[in-house]
Amino acid sequence: MRLLPRWASPYPRQHLASDLLAGVIVTILVIPQSLAYALLAGLPPQAGLYVAIFPVIAYSLFGSSMVQAVGPVAITSIMTYSVLTPIAAPGSPEYIALAATLALASGLVLLGCGLLRLGFLARLLSRPVIAGFVSGSAVLIVFSQLKYLFNAHPAASDALTVLAALFAEARIDASTAIGLTAIVVLAFARSSLAGLLGKVGIQPGAAAFVVRLVPLLVVLLATLAVVSWNLDRQYGVAVVGSIVEGLPAPVFFLPEAGELKRLAVPIALMALIGMVQNISMAQVLAIRRRERIDANAELIGLGAANVVAAFHGGMPVGGGVSRSAVNVAAGAQTPLAGIVAAFAMLAVVIGAAPLFTRLPLAVLAASIIVAAVSMIDLRGLRQAWHYDRADGIAALGTGAGVFVLGLEAGIGLGILLSLATLLYRASTPHIAVLGRIPDSEHFRNVERHAVETLPSALFLRTDESLFFGNLDAVEARLLAEIERNGGLRDVVLIMSAVNRVDATAMEVLHDLDRELGARGIRLNFAEIKGPVHDRLRDTALLQELSGRVFLSVNDAYEALQG
Amino acid sequence: MRLLPRWASPYPRQHLASDLLAGVIVTILVIPQSLAYALLAGLPPQAGLYVAIFPVIAYSLFGSSMVQAVGPVAITSIMTYSVLTPIAAPGSPEYIALAATLALASGLVLLGCGLLRLGFLARLLSRPVIAGFVSGSAVLIVFSQLKYLFNAHPAASDALTVLAALFAEARIDASTAIGLTAIVVLAFARSSLAGLLGKVGIQPGAAAFVVRLVPLLVVLLATLAVVSWNLDRQYGVAVVGSIVEGLPAPVFFLPEAGELKRLAVPIALMALIGMVQNISMAQVLAIRRRERIDANAELIGLGAANVVAAFHGGMPVGGGVSRSAVNVAAGAQTPLAGIVAAFAMLAVVIGAAPLFTRLPLAVLAASIIVAAVSMIDLRGLRQAWHYDRADGIAALGTGAGVFVLGLEAGIGLGILLSLATLLYRASTPHIAVLGRIPDSEHFRNVERHAVETLPSALFLRTDESLFFGNLDAVEARLLAEIERNGGLRDVVLIMSAVNRVDATAMEVLHDLDRELGARGIRLNFAEIKGPVHDRLRDTALLQELSGRVFLSVNDAYEALQG
Repeated sequence: MRLLPRWASPYPRQHLASDLLAGVIVTILVIPQSLAYALLAGLPPQAGLYVAIFPVIAYSLFGSSMVQAVGPVAITSIMTYSVLTPIAAPGSPEYIALAATLALASGLVLLGCGLLRLGFLARLLSRPVIAGFVSGSAVLIVFSQLKYLFNAHPAASDALTVLAALFAEARIDASTAIGLTAIVVLAFARSSLAGLLGKVGIQPGAAAFVVRLVPLLVVLLATLAVVSWNLDRQYGVAVVGSIVEGLPAPVFFLPEAGELKRLAVPIALMALIGMVQNISMAQVLAIRRRERIDANAELIGLGAANVVAAFHGGMPVGGGVSRSAVNVAAGAQTPLAGIVAAFAMLAVVIGAAPLFTRLPLAVLAASIIVAAVSMIDLRGLRQAWHYDRADGIAALGTGAGVFVLGLEAGIGLGILLSLATLLYRASTPHIAVLGRIPDSEHFRNVERHAVETLPSALFLRTDESLFFGNLDAVEARLLAEIERNGGLRDVVLIMSAVNRVDATAMEVLHDLDRELGARGIRLNFAEIKGPVHDRLRDTALLQELSGRVFLSVNDAYEALQG
Repeated sequence: MRLLPRWASPYPRQHLASDLLAGVIVTILVIPQSLAYALLAGLPPQAGLYVAIFPVIAYSLFGSSMVQAVGPVAITSIMTYSVLTPIAAPGSPEYIALAATLALASGLVLLGCGLLRLGFLARLLSRPVIAGFVSGSAVLIVFSQLKYLFNAHPAASDALTVLAALFAEARIDASTAIGLTAIVVLAFARSSLAGLLGKVGIQPGAAAFVVRLVPLLVVLLATLAVVSWNLDRQYGVAVVGSIVEGLPAPVFFLPEAGELKRLAVPIALMALIGMVQNISMAQVLAIRRRERIDANAELIGLGAANVVAAFHGGMPVGGGVSRSAVNVAAGAQTPLAGIVAAFAMLAVVIGAAPLFTRLPLAVLAASIIVAAVSMIDLRGLRQAWHYDRADGIAALGTGAGVFVLGLEAGIGLGILLSLATLLYRASTPHIAVLGRIPDSEHFRNVERHAVETLPSALFLRTDESLFFGNLDAVEARLLAEIERNGGLRDVVLIMSAVNRVDATAMEVLHDLDRELGARGIRLNFAEIKGPVHDRLRDTALLQELSGRVFLSVNDAYEALQG
């Protein structure tokens, strides 16, 4: 291992000023979301600030992305909440300990995957499935926050219980007014403010900065309103409450075996989702900046960040979309900006944390709701549906699964649906009977072109690699064609689109050859690709083949014509 | 639905004599294995005889195979045993009730899958994985029977517990002698008897019949020995014991919801394994006889047989390898042979069951062990390993998983390994940079052939459909080639081997196009297949493409040369 990370050896001096500035700006701008996501995770709000310190430094040292910003994020927070609420009461000491265990264990899993170079596991999920998962989670997140706006106290975190509690208990009061106002302001800022500022002649860069500043302004104004009119004491507006002053010491612990066993599935799923989100975010950012990322270094960085987060702050972290966007917009060039941001956050925690004691929870809930609504990817879902029905079904199934069955079952369903679409597509191959275009060496589908055929030979092309899942489709089609064409003496399988033949397919073809042989029909191959032929050469299939292996379809046609 | 099954409307009269004879022969020959597999399943031996009556009739009416014989089989029996022993004591009323529930529920699942036309689910398992599963199960079966030979009483059914019990308690006595003698005789009959009979001039057909007769002779001789010398009473040889005389009435019941929930996973796995085994057996038999089977009708037949078995006999059944082989060897032509066999078994149960009360268990154990050893498919495992390492690993992993983790976890592992090999192969595509063979229109891999290339254009061919799992490999290769070739103005993706482009791949290609555009490089396509082009035509990828879509690689080469 290098002593210094790659970006710091040597550190490009010309980036120093922009990194310093970006670090400070990011810290100030992400304060509201750090507090909000801690709340979403069912933890004390200041936990969100703590995990924006040392974990960020850990990621800066080990990650590979130049500008990705790590910290509390929506998806990991809602996962923490939905995994732990059935086991412990949010905010209770047991709950806080379990959240730290979750961070530690998923961090170790990520570290392990990175060291074992298992970054390819992130491929288990297709984009439509990820879109479905994120959208379903976003709806769950919105539901989870409505209780702060309407003063309900649902007993569990699933959508049904929350809805029932809202119908039974919802009470409109000052919190509702503050929360709804904040939602309107934040939604307006997100959707229209930049355009409006542009129209009055403000530069896009500056406009984007102002838009990013709005959440902080809303938080400050709401706190000011509470303080000015004593809203918390006189009107019962729920606020963040006492925040421990100063920086807490790290808490080192070893997780209990029993807890690990109970949380095994959530830990694995959290690591998987963290992996997918972090790598895909880092890739998007790297492509824009013409850089490359190393998926395994990303896992090590994210894993280290979570392990550190477990000991200080006790909350799982991830690569954040809006956090990274702020980082890029503020001009960050290297991970030094992250280290600066960490120290700036340290200063905030030590100096300014008491400012947030009277921040109304409804405002944090509002900022979560607005962020979550923007995560619902209706366009992606619609696009997947139109482009490929199987992808669309996988996306909708995952989204609905998350909402109805919960996050864990939803993501499990997503993995299954990803693999099922893959299996389904590969097992329904396109198969064509070919004939020769007269006076040429070209062969085309007999159903689409005027071609000549041989009465005694059938030319069949399968447009898919042959494997355990599609061999019976090929066999069924072949036998059906043989039934239809009486008097066949040869079958030619055209292998030009076959990139692989697995062991099952090889055996089934061998069986098929013997079976056709019993009927007096020879099995031939044409245009077997080099790598496929290398592997088939020594098998019983080719060594005992009743027919021949032709280099080209035309060779076969000429030979069998005679 | 037809009133009569297809094979009986009209019934081909010329087959009547052979079907009648075959049915009677099969019944006599399969008595020992019916008793043995019931013992293997932890049920009273006569249960194996009962489920060879009405379930066989049910399968004959609904199945599609002409000669497959259904009844108690090794795999379903060991599954029953390993699923139920942790819950109830073998032979206890609770155990017997649970076995019937297992038969009923897995039968209903199979019926449902058949009616919903889900026969393709059998494709979830590749042949190497099935070979691994069957081999692992066979080893477990051998282990489970050693206790009858060595008088041990293991407390659980897993391999470790059985081994420990054998080491601690093994006692050699008359049972051991009878069992080992039976093993030697049966193994000799299986391996060498037919050859020996051939050498002394006996016809192959007659020799095969004699071989099949040996197990029954061994059973009769062993019983005779017990009766003659009072081995059970004087030397403590364990025997089958009291068999209820006559035919028991069917027991109709509804399974309890709690039991179903507890057995949900085993029920699903049992249905899956039954499905795979039955369909693959039926297919092998049908191919030999130049017939076709209907996978969904097979599921309905097997499902109906299990539902009937639940109510009469109370033991799951399946399509049996040796049972079907006996049926074919005895000359069966249609499922009428099965119906005849069912009535013959009815006669045996009513008339001859008491004959088996003094049959030594060690002989049944010996016949199970000999059958199980022949199921260990070392050749198949070795072949898969040599042909394709991924298939070999999947097979060995499944086999070891069954032996170490148990049947359920083993089959789960097998499904995962099947899918993992599929995903792994598709996600590591063969990618080649192509150049033109001088003075031709042929393009070949630059690493293998002397070809000419253009300094400003890169020609890349991916030999795999593009999907969520392999796009980053393609992207990484493409970017690496761009790094290596400074001054590129065009990239041409050759799509001749791409049979599908899923939604994820389409989006990633669109991102890639924009990214290349920012570097001043155009993305072009060549030789997109018709179905792929139809689908891509209306997407943002092709509509906003920076480059062009060429019909052939040579068109692209000519155009970009100018």
